Amino acid sequence: MNKIEKLEAIAKRLRIHSLRMTTRAGSGHPTTCLSMADLAACLFFDELRYNTRDPEDWGNDELVLSKGHAAPILWAAYAEAGIIPVESLMDLRKLTSELEGHPTPRMRWVKAATGSLGQGLSVGVGMALAQRLGKSPGRTFVVMGDGECAEGSVWEAANAASQYRLKNICAVVDINRLGQSGATMHGHDTAAYARKFRAFGWDALVVDGHRIPKILEAFRKIGKTGKPTAVLARTVKGKGVSFLEDRDGWHGKALKEDELAKAIEEIGPAAGFDARACVRKPRAAARPKLGMRTDFKRTPYTEKTATRLAYGNALLKLGKVNGAVLAVDGDVKNSTYADRFFEAFPERSFQSYIAEQNMVGMGIGLAAKGYLPFMATFAAFLSRAHDQIRMAAYSQSNIKLCGSHVGVSIGEDGPSQMGLEDLAIFRPIPGCVVLYPSDPVSAEGCVRAAAGHTGMAYIRTTRPATAVLYPLDEEFPIGGCKILRKSEGDRALIVAAGITVHEALKAREELLAEGIEVRIIDAYSVMPLAAETLRKESAESGNKVVVVEDHYPAGGLGEAVAAEVAGTAAVRHLCVRDLPRSGKPAELLDMCGISAGHIAAAVRELVRE
Amino acid sequence: MNKIEKLEAIAKRLRIHSLRMTTRAGSGHPTTCLSMADLAACLFFDELRYNTRDPEDWGNDELVLSKGHAAPILWAAYAEAGIIPVESLMDLRKLTSELEGHPTPRMRWVKAATGSLGQGLSVGVGMALAQRLGKSPGRTFVVMGDGECAEGSVWEAANAASQYRLKNICAVVDINRLGQSGATMHGHDTAAYARKFRAFGWDALVVDGHRIPKILEAFRKIGKTGKPTAVLARTVKGKGVSFLEDRDGWHGKALKEDELAKAIEEIGPAAGFDARACVRKPRAAARPKLGMRTDFKRTPYTEKTATRLAYGNALLKLGKVNGAVLAVDGDVKNSTYADRFFEAFPERSFQSYIAEQNMVGMGIGLAAKGYLPFMATFAAFLSRAHDQIRMAAYSQSNIKLCGSHVGVSIGEDGPSQMGLEDLAIFRPIPGCVVLYPSDPVSAEGCVRAAAGHTGMAYIRTTRPATAVLYPLDEEFPIGGCKILRKSEGDRALIVAAGITVHEALKAREELLAEGIEVRIIDAYSVMPLAAETLRKESAESGNKVVVVEDHYPAGGLGEAVAAEVAGTAAVRHLCVRDLPRSGKPAELLDMCGISAGHIAAAVRELVRE
Repeated sequence: MNKIEKLEAIAKRLRIHSLRMTTRAGSGHPTTCLSMADLAACLFFDELRYNTRDPEDWGNDELVLSKGHAAPILWAAYAEAGIIPVESLMDLRKLTSELEGHPTPRMRWVKAATGSLGQGLSVGVGMALAQRLGKSPGRTFVVMGDGECAEGSVWEAANAASQYRLKNICAVVDINRLGQSGATMHGHDTAAYARKFRAFGWDALVVDGHRIPKILEAFRKIGKTGKPTAVLARTVKGKGVSFLEDRDGWHGKALKEDELAKAIEEIGPAAGFDARACVRKPRAAARPKLGMRTDFKRTPYTEKTATRLAYGNALLKLGKVNGAVLAVDGDVKNSTYADRFFEAFPERSFQSYIAEQNMVGMGIGLAAKGYLPFMATFAAFLSRAHDQIRMAAYSQSNIKLCGSHVGVSIGEDGPSQMGLEDLAIFRPIPGCVVLYPSDPVSAEGCVRAAAGHTGMAYIRTTRPATAVLYPLDEEFPIGGCKILRKSEGDRALIVAAGITVHEALKAREELLAEGIEVRIIDAYSVMPLAAETLRKESAESGNKVVVVEDHYPAGGLGEAVAAEVAGTAAVRHLCVRDLPRSGKPAELLDMCGISAGHIAAAVRELVRE
Repeated sequence: MNKIEKLEAIAKRLRIHSLRMTTRAGSGHPTTCLSMADLAACLFFDELRYNTRDPEDWGNDELVLSKGHAAPILWAAYAEAGIIPVESLMDLRKLTSELEGHPTPRMRWVKAATGSLGQGLSVGVGMALAQRLGKSPGRTFVVMGDGECAEGSVWEAANAASQYRLKNICAVVDINRLGQSGATMHGHDTAAYARKFRAFGWDALVVDGHRIPKILEAFRKIGKTGKPTAVLARTVKGKGVSFLEDRDGWHGKALKEDELAKAIEEIGPAAGFDARACVRKPRAAARPKLGMRTDFKRTPYTEKTATRLAYGNALLKLGKVNGAVLAVDGDVKNSTYADRFFEAFPERSFQSYIAEQNMVGMGIGLAAKGYLPFMATFAAFLSRAHDQIRMAAYSQSNIKLCGSHVGVSIGEDGPSQMGLEDLAIFRPIPGCVVLYPSDPVSAEGCVRAAAGHTGMAYIRTTRPATAVLYPLDEEFPIGGCKILRKSEGDRALIVAAGITVHEALKAREELLAEGIEVRIIDAYSVMPLAAETLRKESAESGNKVVVVEDHYPAGGLGEAVAAEVAGTAAVRHLCVRDLPRSGKPAELLDMCGISAGHIAAAVRELVRE
């Protein structure tokens, strides 16, 4: 058998596996697997170079299946490559199997979860950047659907790839004409896709996605122009099975047993050689030694300093002791103060412009290759990347995010720029740490804690300068809190974080003058919360708790504390309850009911009860 | 004075206003106003047709300032047009002024808040669609920055505009080369923007944005090719003031008094005619009478039916009695069941393909013109549009959203498709109603309640079919709850919603067999919550509460209930605490600890305490 015949036979097997797997599972997306079967055969058994014994081999080409609903054919390809047993394919979508309905890193060859469409290209850009940064000979392939090209995030990623002149990335677009609920926007108009990719600075190659010699010919041109390459493959959804081909109504539908038998008969028998021998090995390459220190020397602060500025200082210092640390920005580095890192380490800094989805997606790709990316923008604009952040959890990604300009304390710029829902974005993310410093010392401590944590971490920083509260070497462990003020006669507990810690301290002065003693906790670790300490300190303060935060009522510190002390403590929750507006920071804190005066009033009311 | 001279004089005035306003406010973005001053003069005082006495005149052209940080020049233009007093400009950014740092509808000519970049074009597409739908002669202009063209949402909107063949929309891009933190991706390469817009099906006109005759010439070509039109204006940031022109480091910075004096001197005096006479009046047009009934006839259900299917049925029936109702879809209408509406009312249905940001942005635009858009996709994918949803609150938008396929109960498709953070997205949105039906009757009731509510509403629907719990005509008012089971001997209260209501009912059977009586509440109105009823029923049930939800721990029903009963009731919160995976729905409910067995166990534990 020659190479073409072998690849045709492998494509048949991949089709048959995909159909059998989904019928056995009783659900899944077989027709979207059939359209890309010839592309998959050419990719996994001719074009890609990878060490089947080690997904972490630094010489490997990477593949991201952005059209994640085609997971069955991905698993089938790994089975034919000898990476997983062929029998395991029949466990698709079972609770006990790592072969899920959409790819997740439970299967160790998957480095980023997919299934929310349009995200894979950004992840691929991050991986390709990491390969270049770490001098890997590997390239990154992203297999996309035509439907997902409607997602703006695809074009953010396309911009980034051409901006960075990534000739080591290739998008393979499986243009099968049909989306879930009908035809895609452009149907089989491959020229429309070519125009778009070219306008975004890519080399675009249009090819018949079912003619293996043509596919191989296109693959040979990848990266030859110095640009990123899009292989635009015209395909037929359900290809190979007459009653599925190009038919609407077959998306996400497994075949019944009799339909399966008919389909397999139509596809016909595939030759029985060992496909493993077709896999190309990677070139030898050593993974760069980056060091993973997090014990940078802290900055001595004496004057009021914004936590966002201290974040910038800490990131720079962390970068000096840890070569894995990278900075990614969304055109606000002079506000988040990531600019210090950008100036010191231009080669480890990535401008994503005003494209937050791509910023986070790139970060997931960089982290998947072993780097430690810190991404920063206004907290409000991280909402733009909420889906990428959500998916990062399923990718079990080691990304760090910083959201600056939180709350009404930003002042005059007004509500569109105020991060008032970011805690509610990050607190639900399984495994994500949420840190919220109140002064420059704790901001640096939080950067250290975030860097040392394996997994996602979010740091919330404030625009205005705040007073120094802590000594130089104070540590801020994840899950801790700081008891800032305490006396035996405390009649209430104030739980605050960030800017409201300073308001709480002012409120305490006011209350002390009236003879009311209160305890104050700085809950810098919003997730996980220091629940036991909170309960103990609450009990010692008469179980009367005021929580005050520069955030909307739902999903933030107030509800977190309420959930922990439910049944034992009375809770007053001060937070931003109405639509804010432009104004001076102090005016807004007061108007929204989270200033010192309001805290003192809430304490008075509680202790009177 | 001829027209050109007048417009040049107006541009001078707009520049001077913008500089004075921001200096007086002590903050703001004057240089981004200066770059678009000539464009603004041509737009507001020659090209746009609008009735200065009525922002709701159906004949008006609409203008969306997508580059919202240029708010000062927008306010200045409205002052010169006689809509607001010129003196009021000096109140920019004050707490008491409607002239905020970024545009919000507190100023009634603003129909959609901007300031999160890249969103305006989608809003404009929605407005232009509404104009066409309602036979308005008006057109929609969207003034954009070059920096924001990096946002993928811009290209989603560009797709939509060409897909809908909107010749009544014009994007005016102020290409001033500088972003916030440095040069934009393409700098002054206007051809790069032209290539992109043309590839996305637009007519693109490149023009010198400071030569008024050239601008007017370009404007005369708008819509002439039958395509949407992009006017790509090469401009200079800070234009007109030598020490600001094309300089980095001046973004978002007001001039000091002495700098202001120098700048105004450089700009020179502007002729003193009345600019109001330059404003062009709109053609007479009558706003369509759409009717706003919400009392559609409900479907009698006898068999298990998914709430998502009942949503689809209800939307169709609502559409029959209410001509303002529109449906917008993200290529999943056969899963959300919006397809029934699409089939019945194709002219009132809008396919946004897999582009959720644009889906919501278009909806904001449609609602801004008086329509009642219902947008539906998988709840998980609404996270993609979180920033648009956030901004919709500041737009005080009357949009309705439906998120289907919530929670682990979707089963085998796996975590990427599970909406597990959607309550935490919508609960913090000020003024947003969150409804979560548990059966087909309540699903239809929730659609009715959402339609009758003025403001944002979110409906959370479930994939699997659920049993009928309520009689045909049961009402589901906002802020209510249903006491489903109640007896005098109740020793605990179970608060559930959606699929977990059915698990709670099963748990009660199990507990009754052991002699433990429990009360059950269906908390279909998650926001606002029926807090008083909850507290009363909790008190009558021994103040022992189990909350169970198919959602992550933070920001959902559990924390909402805990916050309301803090200090009085002991609360057990059952929810999805770890990363879920593919599996059968019942297996996953059990694995995640939210099945009947786990509810019964939690009740047993509570009543033992």
